[in-house]
Order: sequence, then structure tokens, then C-alpha cells
Amino acid sequence: MTITPTSLPKHVKVVEVGPRDGLQNEKQLVPADVKIALVDRLTAAGFANIETTSFVSPKWVPQMADGAEVMAGIQRRPGTIYSVLTPNMRGFEGAIAAKADEVVIFGAASEAFSQRNINCSIEESIARFEPVARAAKDAGLRLRGSISCALGCPYQGEVPVASVVDVVQRLAALGCDEIDIADTIGVGTPSRTREVMEACAKVFPIERLSGHFHDTYGQATANIYAALLSGISIFHSSVAGLGGCPYAKGATGNVATEDVLYLLHGLGLETGIDLDAVVRAGDFISQAIGRQNASRVGRAMLAKMQDAATAGA
Amino acid sequence: MTITPTSLPKHVKVVEVGPRDGLQNEKQLVPADVKIALVDRLTAAGFANIETTSFVSPKWVPQMADGAEVMAGIQRRPGTIYSVLTPNMRGFEGAIAAKADEVVIFGAASEAFSQRNINCSIEESIARFEPVARAAKDAGLRLRGSISCALGCPYQGEVPVASVVDVVQRLAALGCDEIDIADTIGVGTPSRTREVMEACAKVFPIERLSGHFHDTYGQATANIYAALLSGISIFHSSVAGLGGCPYAKGATGNVATEDVLYLLHGLGLETGIDLDAVVRAGDFISQAIGRQNASRVGRAMLAKMQDAATAGA
Repeated sequence: MTITPTSLPKHVKVVEVGPRDGLQNEKQLVPADVKIALVDRLTAAGFANIETTSFVSPKWVPQMADGAEVMAGIQRRPGTIYSVLTPNMRGFEGAIAAKADEVVIFGAASEAFSQRNINCSIEESIARFEPVARAAKDAGLRLRGSISCALGCPYQGEVPVASVVDVVQRLAALGCDEIDIADTIGVGTPSRTREVMEACAKVFPIERLSGHFHDTYGQATANIYAALLSGISIFHSSVAGLGGCPYAKGATGNVATEDVLYLLHGLGLETGIDLDAVVRAGDFISQAIGRQNASRVGRAMLAKMQDAATAGA
Repeated sequence: MTITPTSLPKHVKVVEVGPRDGLQNEKQLVPADVKIALVDRLTAAGFANIETTSFVSPKWVPQMADGAEVMAGIQRRPGTIYSVLTPNMRGFEGAIAAKADEVVIFGAASEAFSQRNINCSIEESIARFEPVARAAKDAGLRLRGSISCALGCPYQGEVPVASVVDVVQRLAALGCDEIDIADTIGVGTPSRTREVMEACAKVFPIERLSGHFHDTYGQATANIYAALLSGISIFHSSVAGLGGCPYAKGATGNVATEDVLYLLHGLGLETGIDLDAVVRAGDFISQAIGRQNASRVGRAMLAKMQDAATAGA
């Protein structure tokens, strides 16, 4: 059987999560002005959605303690959605004060992960988000729901497809405009990706489902291609592969935005994003935090840019 | 449209190319006893085909000067094919003396690459292999043909699909038992991969066509999944991602075997290969040559093995 490229979505939205999901999982504290410069570069590169910061207790997540400062300092482009994570009403009030365009709530598809990470059941954790969801809707804000461990869990291993579908339904009931299916530990492969995406699309509109893949086992671009074949048209990624994997030291975390854009553009799909500008943004942040650029496209394109500069000198 | 897993090939042959294609592109010279230990570990892991060395002038490729010593030193497993590269009759005689199971000849799909790399046209380069091909057939050896730059060229950029098909036909006319479609610089994406594979399958039996992907732009597992959907069932890969990319300093080269096996096993396909044993072989060679393990599966699984060892201690 042959899939023709015409069966792929024409336009794909890439949600840049590096400033929040990426930097939150880097060891060192990154100064607010560096974060602001990064977000501004990403805005200029053309992203329609940037996950910018968290409004969360600085005791728990010191890396995001400067959320208000970052939101106040960035240059916003009209039309771009600047999203923030809001675990509770206090966070939600911070998001409102910072004029966030979208708030993000979250839950795990794995009962073991929910218990170990936030000390309550999946059901309880989602119930806690009810006031945030209601307040977001009342304020006319976009609401996104993120489902972690949708393709596997570091504690329980296998996660039933039915558990993912169940959390999708709970988040949909809270009024989520968009729902992320996240492979938090990067263990998924294409068949499972398609199975989960297609099951979720039966209970939630596929054009508002997104794929959030980690590259821990080198499967992220394969899974994104698989999800595209299932009709998914929103993907999350992190510039320069910022983030790493908290469950395996030295392992890869979020898929790099540069690698995802190379895939999508190579498939002839539109993203509205300038890959060269993203490669430069990835170089900027990698140098600023003194870390190897984890994007393979970034490394290959930067090597070529340097060769060209040397040849021209 | 949905692809069901039943449309994928059930059994996949993974050809391990690390000892030759990988080590040939590493900077430092690797002692023969380390190469032998690596091949023995790969044999024990269950590979049915290992690209072991080259019989080529040591002036041109000093890394492979010990080809005869390596072939004489390895422990062979009956049924496993030990392949060697033979650019000319002198190399072929070395291969015969070393009791190679398969000899490999090669040509580029890009005219610019052929001219820059070996100073002659594609047509001339393949004509030069005629005596080697005839001698291999006369000696009852398997003959493999490898086509570089099948998805793009560092000099001319785009490579027409018709050029790849033309070289497939020329290599088929020389009697090749297996033909490799190689993305030498890792620029391909899934649609192009499928287009090229499906065009080649019209002129050569698909079950004897193989995909050789580089991960320079992070597309290798996506391209392998795409090629599987087109019916390809033979793939090349390099343990620990040995090799690197000679066209972009610091960039990724051959796709890591561990990442490919994780993909294939995750899709429920049989390879006959023990992934844990390959991860350990990748750790062995990475440490032996003092290089970061370029396999993401390798890094993630080794981190877990170390955690388990620490927990058990």
C-alpha cells in the first residue's frame, strides 16, 4: 500500500516549547534577559505559538521564578500565542497579570506517574484544574491540556490506550481548546503513535490534537511522520533540543525544533517558520548556556555556515 | 488513510556497517584487535551480515590497512555474511584470500560527486567494476552494489530519481545480488525516500534493495519507517553511530544500529538481533576509541543499566 503526500496535512503548526519545557529541565538558572532574547528570536523566526514560562511556585521550579519578568520583557508579535503553565489559581492570577494568551493545564495518562509525581490519582489531579479551566474560559483565554506519559511511563511501563483516551475526554470536558499527546520519556514507536493518535481523534477533533515527542530513543521524527499520516497537524518541539531527559542522565529529551522543521519542509508542508532563523536562535541559546547544541540539523547547518564564512573570508 | 502494521515486512535484515563504514570515517586509527573484538561482539549479538573491512590501498584509506588481519582474526558464525569493499581486482584478490562471503562495489547517483570523488563519470566508474563483478560471480561470491548520494549530493544538491534508477540498472546488469540506496549526506526526508525506493523497486526486486540512511539532519528513523511502508526490508546501520559525517564537522553520520533496532522491534518486526548485546558492543567501541556514544538508545539504555547497577550495589 502506498501513502501519497497528498494525504498529509498541508499546513502544520509547530509550538515552540524551548523557553519553558526546555529551559525548565536544564540544570543551570538562565537569566531573564537571555530568556527574553531567546523568545524574541523565536517570535522573529515566525512561530505562531511559543510556550514561554510557568507561573508555578519558585520553591518547586526555581528556573521559572522570573515568569512575570520574562512575559513583561518580550516583544510580542500580533497573532502569536504566548502560552504559560498554570498549575493552580495562584498561577492563573499570575498568567492574567502577565497577559498570557493561553494557559496550560496537565495530567498524566499513567496512574503510577500521577501518584509519584503529584501524589494523587489522575482523576484527582484533573479535578484540581477545574477552577483554573473555568477561570480561563470566563476570562476568554485559550486553554490547552497536556497529557504526559501517553506512550509509556518510567514507573509503570506500558500505558493503556484507553487511559489516554480517558484523560482526553476529561480535559475536553474542562473546555480545552487544544490537547497534547505527550511521549514524555520518548519510548514510543510509529505503530503505537498511530494507534494512540487515531483513538484520541475519535473523541476529540483531530485538528486540535497535538503531538509532543521526545527523542530519547531516536524515534521522534519517525513518530511525527507517523502522526502526520494519521492526520495530526500540530507538533511541539524545543529549539536546539533544550531540555534533556530527567529520567536518563545524558539522554536526549524534547525533539529539536530544527529537526522537525527540516522534516516538515522536506515533506513540502508549510509552517510559516524560517528554519535558518531558528538555527541561529538555537546557536544563541546553546552558547548562552554553554551546552552542546542537541539539534542535528542545527549542528550540520552551523558547520556549513561556518565553512561558508571561512571560504568567504 | 490508515496504514495497518500488517503492511510492513515481517522480518527485517539489519546490515551492521560500523566496523567498515563507521571506523573508516573515524579520525584515529583503531588497532586490529579492537576491531576484531567489535566484530565478534556483533556476531554474538546475532547479525546476519556484517560489513567487516575494505581491501583498498592503505595509502588512500590507512584505517583499513589491517583488513586481512581483521578477517583472519574474527570468530565467524555459520550463516553470517562477512562483507568487504573491493574497489578493484587487487582488492578482490585480498577478499578471496581472506575468505570474504560478499564483496561490495559502489557508484554514485550524482555525476558531480563521482567526478569530485573518483575523477570519472558514473558510467566509467561502474565499468571499472566489471572485472570485479565477473570474478565474484565466477568465484560464487555474493555481490553487493552500493549507490551513494541517492537522496542528495554535497556538490550538486538535488539528484534526479532517474539517475538513481539508472545506476540500479547498471549494477543489476553486473549481477548484484543486493543493491543499497544510500543517503550519504543524510539530507533525505520521507516522501523523497518513498519516491526513490518505489522507483527503484520497479527495476530491481524490492526484497533485495536496501536502505542506507545517515542521521545528519535527524531524519534517519523517519526515513526508515517510510521505506518500510514502501516495502523495503533491509537496512544498514552503524553501532554507536560510528562514523560521523565527513561533509559537516561535528555532524551525525550513519544512523545508529541501536536506534534502528529499537524502531524495528517497537514496530513488532523480527530482526534476530539482541538489542542489549548491541548496546554493550556500542559502549565497548565508544570507550575503546574515546568518543561519545552517538546512539540515543545506547545513551538512554546505558544510563538505565548504570542506575540499576548502582541501585543493586
